[in-house]
Amino acid sequence: MQLELLAQLRAQNPIVLNISNFVTVQDVANGINALGASPIMSEEIAEADALVQMSGAVALNLGAFTKQQLAHIKKTGELANQYHKPLIVDPVAVGAVTYRRDVALQLFEDFQVDIIRGNAGEVAALAGIAWQAKGIDAGEGSGDKVAIAQAAAKRHHCVVILSGATDIITDGTQVVQVANGTPLFQLHVGSGDMLSSVVAAFAAVSGGDYFAAAQTACLVFASAGELVAQELPGELPGTFAAKLLDELHLITTADVAQIARYTEA
Amino acid sequence: MQLELLAQLRAQNPIVLNISNFVTVQDVANGINALGASPIMSEEIAEADALVQMSGAVALNLGAFTKQQLAHIKKTGELANQYHKPLIVDPVAVGAVTYRRDVALQLFEDFQVDIIRGNAGEVAALAGIAWQAKGIDAGEGSGDKVAIAQAAAKRHHCVVILSGATDIITDGTQVVQVANGTPLFQLHVGSGDMLSSVVAAFAAVSGGDYFAAAQTACLVFASAGELVAQELPGELPGTFAAKLLDELHLITTADVAQIARYTEA
Amino acid sequence: MQLELLAQLRAQNPIVLNISNFVTVQDVANGINALGASPIMSEEIAEADALVQMSGAVALNLGAFTKQQLAHIKKTGELANQYHKPLIVDPVAVGAVTYRRDVALQLFEDFQVDIIRGNAGEVAALAGIAWQAKGIDAGEGSGDKVAIAQAAAKRHHCVVILSGATDIITDGTQVVQVANGTPLFQLHVGSGDMLSSVVAAFAAVSGGDYFAAAQTACLVFASAGELVAQELPGELPGTFAAKLLDELHLITTADVAQIARYTEA
Repeated sequence: MQLELLAQLRAQNPIVLNISNFVTVQDVANGINALGASPIMSEEIAEADALVQMSGAVALNLGAFTKQQLAHIKKTGELANQYHKPLIVDPVAVGAVTYRRDVALQLFEDFQVDIIRGNAGEVAALAGIAWQAKGIDAGEGSGDKVAIAQAAAKRHHCVVILSGATDIITDGTQVVQVANGTPLFQLHVGSGDMLSSVVAAFAAVSGGDYFAAAQTACLVFASAGELVAQELPGELPGTFAAKLLDELHLITTADVAQIARYTEA
Repeated sequence: MQLELLAQLRAQNPIVLNISNFVTVQDVANGINALGASPIMSEEIAEADALVQMSGAVALNLGAFTKQQLAHIKKTGELANQYHKPLIVDPVAVGAVTYRRDVALQLFEDFQVDIIRGNAGEVAALAGIAWQAKGIDAGEGSGDKVAIAQAAAKRHHCVVILSGATDIITDGTQVVQVANGTPLFQLHVGSGDMLSSVVAAFAAVSGGDYFAAAQTACLVFASAGELVAQELPGELPGTFAAKLLDELHLITTADVAQIARYTEA
Repeated sequence: MQLELLAQLRAQNPIVLNISNFVTVQDVANGINALGASPIMSEEIAEADALVQMSGAVALNLGAFTKQQLAHIKKTGELANQYHKPLIVDPVAVGAVTYRRDVALQLFEDFQVDIIRGNAGEVAALAGIAWQAKGIDAGEGSGDKVAIAQAAAKRHHCVVILSGATDIITDGTQVVQVANGTPLFQLHVGSGDMLSSVVAAFAAVSGGDYFAAAQTACLVFASAGELVAQELPGELPGTFAAKLLDELHLITTADVAQIARYTEA
């Protein structure tokens, strides 16, 4: 775990290019902006080359795209590879919608992803393992989540984050599990999308160590949510969303270190 | 009034497919998620069949669509009919913009809507009754709102919700009026959009009784807003929006029963 | 400075048509709605004529547009000229992305803009002056910001607002500088977008005095942010965003007059 990446992120203020999900785009932009990165969003392929070049990392969200946007997503991923920018993909609802799964798997043929961030249903679908996903939610399955994450990482030659009550981060062999967090993340739509772009922000300052970036991003984000939840008088999803932005700005390395609960294996 | 639908909604956690207004999409998703449903949004016609099939209800928002999206809206409505899923339409600004009214009326030829939810200006336009709408707002008119709602329901063979200081819900003959609410709803853009998707969530668990679903949805939503407003020290639209999400998650059947003010006729 | 425009805005509740940035659209709609205007958003060229006609002002945001949307933006700007509606343009990231700058400069050939609102990097790009912009942020430059704003205003024959810690408003000759504000605006993505639409709302009630509208809009908006920041216990970007909407609704002419700090030259 490299907590010093948080200070580096704030010092460098990396530009993170997001091909974003229109459902959650503003919240994602505000989340990484509050944390200390500089978000830029785009839907126009004509500016993809320039935007990838100026960015420190690229986050592709596969939620709610059209065929037209798909060409943009593909091009942006290819450009990220070409310019050696860290590339993060969030495969929204690929576990529930066959069309989305097929699109995601094709994209992974077109470019090399560095980090995938999804829930159990999404990661299982990308690993080719049976799982009962439900819409945008993880759903239920009987498989071993660690094994699922490892299988997806090996299949796609990348780091995988399987988000949930415990976040599982793996490069296919090594596994880190982050136990911090709060059920309130589930009550706020777009928490996962925001985490994916936070991961991109950490990847931008990681010097190419995407496994470290993924772990640290999960730990910082989960800790921020946990700190907010501790102060709330109840399950308040709207108040949580506002205060999560506050905490992403305020949280320090010392705050994270104090409440961190994770295992490395 | 079937308040037990609220408990059923939370127990069943129905997937609600939203073809949404890009202006308010995140707030709508968070609203029905906080209440206890599972939102999914889409802009891609290629996944419409799969998404309608997996959903418990479909909400079509006619705010801010393009011609391309219109094909998607039409197809999704037809699929909702085909798979016998409850279909809710929010005809944003059809009272103010002739183009939007014409599109909405054509759509009602293409598929059978189950519930329409609009303000006075919007419902009047769909009933073919003169009214002075103003942009996205209801505007002013001298007509009898109950008669307007009944006329729209009879014309389109569906349940109609005419939202306002008092919500009027009718199947064309029977009328329920919900007096709960707060002027703060008007100060938060997208309150109506959110209500429309809340109606869809209730319709998904109503066993086909859309008149009951519409009434209960309006009562629960208006009561949540009223409870939030009671606790605010003033007219605070931003704080209201956050706390409305909190209350949609917290509100109980008992809370609603205690402050409910409605008439049935 | 014409603070009475705030009361006029609330009395007239002008419709403001926004061709908006999908990243920040809901926040912008809520901001001008809270202030006292009536927002309407659109992405469909078929309704552009009707929407421009019914509006009191038009705000075009050049953040995150596609080529398809560009045709809509161009048409809407031309219609604003044709119907003599005040036309405000927010040239998002034209300082950082050549494609966006070229598009903006072409648009200024197609229609006559009345007010441009951007940060230093954006305004410098439109003035043809070198500046080191960074993504959506202003970046750093050594030029005289007042001279840059004046050059842009002269070049495009319009009022220019160069936003920053101090807002510079100029008609090319006269200059007003508003010193109110808070660094929290930078921590909330879309503060600039919201200001641009607030400027449009003031322009709608200004009787054609766009220089006065621009000044007053900046002063009211900056004062609202400053008042919110004064009450916060720290740098809380999420809480700030919610309370900014509250304050835009609550702020009075007297509140603004009491804290106003500006110079006219």
